[in-house]
Amino acid sequence: MAVLARARRIRETPFTTRVLAAGVSAWSVYNRMLLPAAFGAVEDDYRHLKTAVQIWDVSVERQVELRGPDAARLVQMLTPRDLSRLKPGRCLYAPVVDPAGGMLNDPVILQLAPDRLWLSVADGDVMLWAKGLAHGAGLDVAVSEPDINPVAVQGPLADDLMARVFTAAPGLKFFGWDWFDFGAQRVIVARSGYSKQGGFEIYCPGPLGPALWDALIEAGRGLDVRVGCPNLIERIEGGLLSYGNDMTPDDTPFDCGLGRYCDGAACVGAAALASADPPVRQIRSLAVGGPAVPPCTAPWPLMAGDVRVGQVTSIAFSPDFGVNVALGMVAASHWAAGTALTVSAPDQPRPAEVRAGSFL
Amino acid sequence: MAVLARARRIRETPFTTRVLAAGVSAWSVYNRMLLPAAFGAVEDDYRHLKTAVQIWDVSVERQVELRGPDAARLVQMLTPRDLSRLKPGRCLYAPVVDPAGGMLNDPVILQLAPDRLWLSVADGDVMLWAKGLAHGAGLDVAVSEPDINPVAVQGPLADDLMARVFTAAPGLKFFGWDWFDFGAQRVIVARSGYSKQGGFEIYCPGPLGPALWDALIEAGRGLDVRVGCPNLIERIEGGLLSYGNDMTPDDTPFDCGLGRYCDGAACVGAAALASADPPVRQIRSLAVGGPAVPPCTAPWPLMAGDVRVGQVTSIAFSPDFGVNVALGMVAASHWAAGTALTVSAPDQPRPAEVRAGSFL
Repeated sequence: MAVLARARRIRETPFTTRVLAAGVSAWSVYNRMLLPAAFGAVEDDYRHLKTAVQIWDVSVERQVELRGPDAARLVQMLTPRDLSRLKPGRCLYAPVVDPAGGMLNDPVILQLAPDRLWLSVADGDVMLWAKGLAHGAGLDVAVSEPDINPVAVQGPLADDLMARVFTAAPGLKFFGWDWFDFGAQRVIVARSGYSKQGGFEIYCPGPLGPALWDALIEAGRGLDVRVGCPNLIERIEGGLLSYGNDMTPDDTPFDCGLGRYCDGAACVGAAALASADPPVRQIRSLAVGGPAVPPCTAPWPLMAGDVRVGQVTSIAFSPDFGVNVALGMVAASHWAAGTALTVSAPDQPRPAEVRAGSFL
Repeated sequence: MAVLARARRIRETPFTTRVLAAGVSAWSVYNRMLLPAAFGAVEDDYRHLKTAVQIWDVSVERQVELRGPDAARLVQMLTPRDLSRLKPGRCLYAPVVDPAGGMLNDPVILQLAPDRLWLSVADGDVMLWAKGLAHGAGLDVAVSEPDINPVAVQGPLADDLMARVFTAAPGLKFFGWDWFDFGAQRVIVARSGYSKQGGFEIYCPGPLGPALWDALIEAGRGLDVRVGCPNLIERIEGGLLSYGNDMTPDDTPFDCGLGRYCDGAACVGAAALASADPPVRQIRSLAVGGPAVPPCTAPWPLMAGDVRVGQVTSIAFSPDFGVNVALGMVAASHWAAGTALTVSAPDQPRPAEVRAGSFL
């Protein structure tokens, strides 16, 4: 396993010193920024995430800020989801598509004010896409990346920990957000996060980073808090899609099972999407047999006999389910729950079964 | 040193199997794709690059293709360089700027036909920027990323090696390109590359990748050919700037010493650039004292006494010059050759001297 060569080009976060001190053992790179990927054995991180509480540096979820009179107009150009219900205090998940209807990202959108929005983006350059559209169309809106760095508090004990730092935070509903005091500052806290274990995301201004991080760790004493990161096994079990892994510009939101977020809004991809529903393939959870798999670094073909009917894009061995859990794109002809397929994994062919839903 | 966690999201190249077999020991991630960063000691790679010939997988230099009646109009919106002299067979280096005049990239542009251009880009999402501009402005041009993967052949023996595979390639002038036969296919070869040792870049279609790679390695027998990668030490010695390291959107082309490529063309940043010249700071080469430096993972302040007058963004110890060679942004007040400054490196303060030019 080769190391990651560090350089300024792969940006540090306000929490990188803390993550290094916690013994990060693997990095990913996401939006040209450091994302911790492991702190020792992924299986240990996984077990801990399901039983206690973890603090994650997810600064890589960069905010793309749209600000100005045309902010609402621009954001609706980006997504087929009808954003008329967008309001402060409520997170909305929304696919972002290109003119061909292909997925460019799947951000969570926060409306700070009618003329000020944040898109909390996955790994893809929404900022330049939005800036290009705005400039080309002559819209009156500034597109920028503010110095906001999400920290996730995830796990069954997340409410307990958060109550010690942001007293009223446990009162938030799922995908609700509000402003909370931290010392003399106010920060946005949402009940959200990239796991199925429950928790929060804190939208942290850079200069506040180390103090906020240390306060969370300190508050976690007695709760077995650990520094963690999005867990490959748990997120696949939970059916949480990863942009760039499970979804690319070659896929429409319908292909990705995100049709419920396509309201026919007049986004740049509207015409293309109108002809893309119903989809002829869709992402499914799969159980894959055989021993624990190697890392999936490129799509693995899904075969029905000699016919390729899809591909696996995320896979890991699940200790809890005793099987390799996977996500992949499957043709309509073979996506029915219970369908038996074969995965052409690099090491050996493996039996696979399409599931009705996710594992969690 | 933490490993890089591999996943589909960080794309493989057509040459990844070859790079792994050659013993890659460090990765970088560039345009969401794998870029080899070392094959053992960087100093050994460096010595070899200066004496023999290396094959580099620089697939990460993605091509952004602009194709259609408005391709020429769109490309001139991207850059302040006057592209009226663009023609087939000639590479043009051109800064790409945003509406504020900030650097978005510094690609090499190839005109395949009047209505078909490739921008061979550094680490930054020019494709979505161009696509957004085109869509917003209603231009008749398709913006895409073709499956083209540059391979660099670099080093003093590059001409010898290339003559064995592409007989007439040594006839190319610097920054000239042409079509060459490889078996039944034609590929573009340019005399270019990210080193000062001389060499070529081959624009390789994906399916041809393994055969082309193996042919180059085979042709290199007796020439001490090795699999290598852009070398940090040599590129700093040569004053080759790295987008994302030495240049960011906070810098204008004038700041980056690229004023000679600003012809006042009517690009999106034209108005901003008109007021940005002369610059008040500029990138300079520096010689930095003290023992070999640790990796520079964030800018290091450049101080004149207690006053910050710039920052170092790339630095490495040079065996040939016996000093740490560096690139950094320096204020006009202190950029004269011979100016003595101090670098606040993370380990210790170090004396620095501004140079008149690069080391090579």
